[in-house]
Amino acid sequence: MSELRKDPISGHWVIISTERGSRPSDFGSSPATAPVEFCPFCEGHEDKTPPEIFSFREENSKPNQRGWSLRVVPNKFPALRIEGYLERKGDGIYDRMNGIGAHEVVIETPHHAQILSSLSEQMIGRVFIAYRERIRDLANDRRFRFCIVFKNQGFHAGATLLHAHSQIVALPITPQWVENELGGARRYYNQKERCIFCDILRQELDDDVRIVTKNDHFAAIAPYAPRFPFETWILPLDHCSNYEDISYEQIQALASLIKDLLCRLETALEYPPFNYMIHTSPLPVRGNNYYHWHIELIPRLTSTAGFEWGTGFYINPTPPEDAAVFLRKLRPRE
Amino acid sequence: MSELRKDPISGHWVIISTERGSRPSDFGSSPATAPVEFCPFCEGHEDKTPPEIFSFREENSKPNQRGWSLRVVPNKFPALRIEGYLERKGDGIYDRMNGIGAHEVVIETPHHAQILSSLSEQMIGRVFIAYRERIRDLANDRRFRFCIVFKNQGFHAGATLLHAHSQIVALPITPQWVENELGGARRYYNQKERCIFCDILRQELDDDVRIVTKNDHFAAIAPYAPRFPFETWILPLDHCSNYEDISYEQIQALASLIKDLLCRLETALEYPPFNYMIHTSPLPVRGNNYYHWHIELIPRLTSTAGFEWGTGFYINPTPPEDAAVFLRKLRPRE
Repeated sequence: MSELRKDPISGHWVIISTERGSRPSDFGSSPATAPVEFCPFCEGHEDKTPPEIFSFREENSKPNQRGWSLRVVPNKFPALRIEGYLERKGDGIYDRMNGIGAHEVVIETPHHAQILSSLSEQMIGRVFIAYRERIRDLANDRRFRFCIVFKNQGFHAGATLLHAHSQIVALPITPQWVENELGGARRYYNQKERCIFCDILRQELDDDVRIVTKNDHFAAIAPYAPRFPFETWILPLDHCSNYEDISYEQIQALASLIKDLLCRLETALEYPPFNYMIHTSPLPVRGNNYYHWHIELIPRLTSTAGFEWGTGFYINPTPPEDAAVFLRKLRPRE
Repeated sequence: MSELRKDPISGHWVIISTERGSRPSDFGSSPATAPVEFCPFCEGHEDKTPPEIFSFREENSKPNQRGWSLRVVPNKFPALRIEGYLERKGDGIYDRMNGIGAHEVVIETPHHAQILSSLSEQMIGRVFIAYRERIRDLANDRRFRFCIVFKNQGFHAGATLLHAHSQIVALPITPQWVENELGGARRYYNQKERCIFCDILRQELDDDVRIVTKNDHFAAIAPYAPRFPFETWILPLDHCSNYEDISYEQIQALASLIKDLLCRLETALEYPPFNYMIHTSPLPVRGNNYYHWHIELIPRLTSTAGFEWGTGFYINPTPPEDAAVFLRKLRPRE
């Protein structure tokens, strides 16, 4: 059983999860790339994952059998488990709680050789519908305070399986970084009665120097203070605090923009490892004026070193204005 | 000229530093390991670095020539530059300032083949004396608010040169993470009139389950909520807020403990890449009751992925109690 522990000084939480190896000899440096025959995410291998929670599948196909285009399954090695009561405990000066939460995997395609950007816009749209449906469902569990959706593509971005997938984790607490971001947005709103993200969008669309690509519903921008080279944020043009309120029309526009953006990044940077994360408001309260959900995408081109770990202060060699120019001038792949 | 930029939502600062390459083609995946003949840190290559600021050298040797055992030089590709006035500017909704600061390199040995743990305790002690002397000197510059000392060992820990070295960066602002840690310690002190680190040390020395190694002046502990497997903190047993107040006797004890700890980690984890960072109080105010300087050491065994980047919440497969047992039972190398 995993455990949540809080650092008493900085206030950060960690998940101590011993589901995977923890001895010194367990930390190998080479990626564990299972051959296709053993990939648990491939079509025909449905029995190698826990039973599916959600799927898009052919009309007459049965759950956990062939005939699907997308599946959501519980993570077989979850960082947090859904069973049990949440127990908060003291430990002398320290605080901890048992590892209650949900940890799900979105298998984005039945085919091993595809990556997200090579899927059709319709298939990419299904990935974003799956996120929405799962968050809506997890929000019904009163133990959960926050839901994070993220994707790791490539071994150096933390992916342990190559088959295209993303993950959803529901947490019993709102992480400190999220609280910090929410707090910053709330302070701005209290001062100006405007959403800071809406103001950023207005300035960026006016200046037009850090916009990478846009359509009727979304803009992809190189943020003003990017931690990483080619970091890109995708924001809905209309104010909305919670990802799970995204409409079907918006999902179609998002799928189109994601495909366009990934193709540009993959052309410019030769298929870099990357992570994306959906930043959205905490679960219990749906809808607020000050926070604006968005996606942050970071290509993993540089390694974080002692300076970053010691200060939380990033050194980035690429000005976002330059990154935007590089990405804008590329034509997306056909 | 580099530039400091602030993210208006989270409040984090980044350094946009174009001294090194910033185009897509500049992000190679292989380490740039210059052969020994071209290593700028080797004895005999003193002309390949900017002039030295501090050194330990033989009595009759001259600066920037042979005969040294340790040199401190300005970084040839600095993230921040020492020349100029600090100018803070607005940029619509955003904030920025020019990249004023200091960026120095501590060359820990004249010999290319050595690593910190293979140096004698006397030589390691000189590294920590160099840190102290440089912080004391940089503190005289009123533009600087905070000084971070860090070491990256190994390419995957962010080292771009193999020759043993560490770095010192003086910043014109106190980073947000540091403020957060200081704030947590201050709140605890205001409530209890005790230093939280002193309380942690008392509980850890009593429990004796997360102590890795200790001596008369320092203890190395596996922290209660470690972000990374085998993360280890080194704390002085006596309360002290500022690293630059370390005594000569303490430096000898620290050198001995660092050598012991690194040998254990390098034996257990087969010479892992690692970072260490000195966490100390900001420069202008020297000496307080609530903060306790310490060193945080993180072996780089796992990669950070979307979950960590999205939440600041870490998943760690190794309980610190297990890590302490593994490291305690090893005999340090002779």
